[in-house]
Amino acid sequence: MDPMLAIAHKLKTAESVLLFPHINMDGDALGSSIALCLALRQLGKNCSILIEDDIPEYLAFLNKGYCIRNAEQIPDMSVAVDCGDVSRIDRRKEIFYSAAATACIDHHLLHADFAQDCLVDSAAAATGMLVFQLLEEMGIQFTQEIADALYVAIMTDTGSFRYSNADRRTHLIIARLYEYGLDHVPLCNAIYDNVPLTQVKLEAKAMDNMEIFANGRACIAHSTLEMIEAAGATPDQTENIIDRLRSIRDVEIAIFLKEKPDGNYKASFRAKSYADVGTLAYRLGGGGHRKAAGCTVAAPLEEAMRILMNAAEEELNR
Amino acid sequence: MDPMLAIAHKLKTAESVLLFPHINMDGDALGSSIALCLALRQLGKNCSILIEDDIPEYLAFLNKGYCIRNAEQIPDMSVAVDCGDVSRIDRRKEIFYSAAATACIDHHLLHADFAQDCLVDSAAAATGMLVFQLLEEMGIQFTQEIADALYVAIMTDTGSFRYSNADRRTHLIIARLYEYGLDHVPLCNAIYDNVPLTQVKLEAKAMDNMEIFANGRACIAHSTLEMIEAAGATPDQTENIIDRLRSIRDVEIAIFLKEKPDGNYKASFRAKSYADVGTLAYRLGGGGHRKAAGCTVAAPLEEAMRILMNAAEEELNR
Repeated sequence: MDPMLAIAHKLKTAESVLLFPHINMDGDALGSSIALCLALRQLGKNCSILIEDDIPEYLAFLNKGYCIRNAEQIPDMSVAVDCGDVSRIDRRKEIFYSAAATACIDHHLLHADFAQDCLVDSAAAATGMLVFQLLEEMGIQFTQEIADALYVAIMTDTGSFRYSNADRRTHLIIARLYEYGLDHVPLCNAIYDNVPLTQVKLEAKAMDNMEIFANGRACIAHSTLEMIEAAGATPDQTENIIDRLRSIRDVEIAIFLKEKPDGNYKASFRAKSYADVGTLAYRLGGGGHRKAAGCTVAAPLEEAMRILMNAAEEELNR
Repeated sequence: MDPMLAIAHKLKTAESVLLFPHINMDGDALGSSIALCLALRQLGKNCSILIEDDIPEYLAFLNKGYCIRNAEQIPDMSVAVDCGDVSRIDRRKEIFYSAAATACIDHHLLHADFAQDCLVDSAAAATGMLVFQLLEEMGIQFTQEIADALYVAIMTDTGSFRYSNADRRTHLIIARLYEYGLDHVPLCNAIYDNVPLTQVKLEAKAMDNMEIFANGRACIAHSTLEMIEAAGATPDQTENIIDRLRSIRDVEIAIFLKEKPDGNYKASFRAKSYADVGTLAYRLGGGGHRKAAGCTVAAPLEEAMRILMNAAEEELNR
């Protein structure tokens, strides 16, 4: 049976459903879960989103009482949302598998089936695209709130439609969401135009110490605990700096170093087209993907910079 | 007669056409002009884009020999593209009006008709949307190059579909462009991941002089000719600063001031949700849209800042 039809059927039969977005949830995991939760509540189901870690600050506005931290009862059905692997529902595994019916809706490339019914389409730009289709299949009445949640899911996972996963289908679904009352402006404002002033100041300071090396093919910048304190910022406010470094012309490898509370440095790497920073990070005891990776360097700033710059030069000369 | 039909008819009759994007051209002006130029060349017309200033560096990849600086002959038809006012084809006015037929295709709010046929729709997210419809009306065979040019026009003018002008129609047209072979990834890389180092340095300096006012609801930053020179940058490399200012939490009005060669200042405004910077700019002798507008202030920096800060406070208190 087609997994979409199987999941639609089981959801209609279930009286209580728990949804499981992945840990370190992003816009797709939370937005897709909220859209599905709203749809199931519309059908009169007892439905909540079970989480085990915090909702990121930039997404908190989406949660209007849908998320719970402790399940009150064993659900009839459990649905993992945007999870490629069971490790991503880590501390919720037991309650997930306690349900009579289990399902997974996901679009990750390396997906391990871990539920009875898996609706997985790695060609979908976002899990939100699959939830849209599922809700259509189920004959749900789309509301503005459902449309808004799906927009956040799809827009964030495609980098505002810029990443290579965005396609014709993505834009067609977004057009449909407008028919259901989507108002994207407050959503984009909440997510993108809501950068704390402290973060703007911290970014400016970090960009100011940026160094270009390897004949312009690599760059490195850093933040220290002192810089974060001076800006009145929080440690997670360094988040966007690595992408700013990556966006510089001719830069193939971007490196951002961030001092940790123990005085060591966390290094983030990005590669633009041909370099493999996954291997680079692995050689330094870290890991990741070819284009995005990281490691920890147990050394003071100058030495950490020297180690990383040498490793990057080596990768570029391979 | 419907201006779209009138322009389509006259373009089909003309043998030579000159296109006039506005001065300080942006992605919409250039992308729309290129799409129209390609379409007219497809019909066997002698068509070029007449420009009077430089193509911004981040858009230079789009121009494959379409732009000329001197008209060789009087065209049968002149078309102003994305121009709300004749002042925006400034030094090309004479050649514009030398044509037997003149037209204007635009989506600006405060638009002054200055041609025989004006296809103006301020509800359109970009002039590229109107050009798309015009080319459909004319029965043009859309190629990937036309689709790519229209994508740049629409994507840049909607801020990657985030601005309030983006709507259902925008996404439907983008979906259509994929059918014609649109490949958005190299376009987004060329525009967004190709920031010159000099621009990064200039942005850092401008962000450093940023001031927050009106109880955090507005901010202002500036670049001087000296700053641009010190960074080794070009004047168009200030382009992204206004969006960075707009993205700050609680900021409703963002203002960026840029010293011009004559020592006066060009002011750019952005509003986030409720303010109307179009009216604000209009009162100061400029123009634009509710959420994005600009004007020129003939005053030294401190006085220009005072004038603009007062105007912004006034708009916020309306």
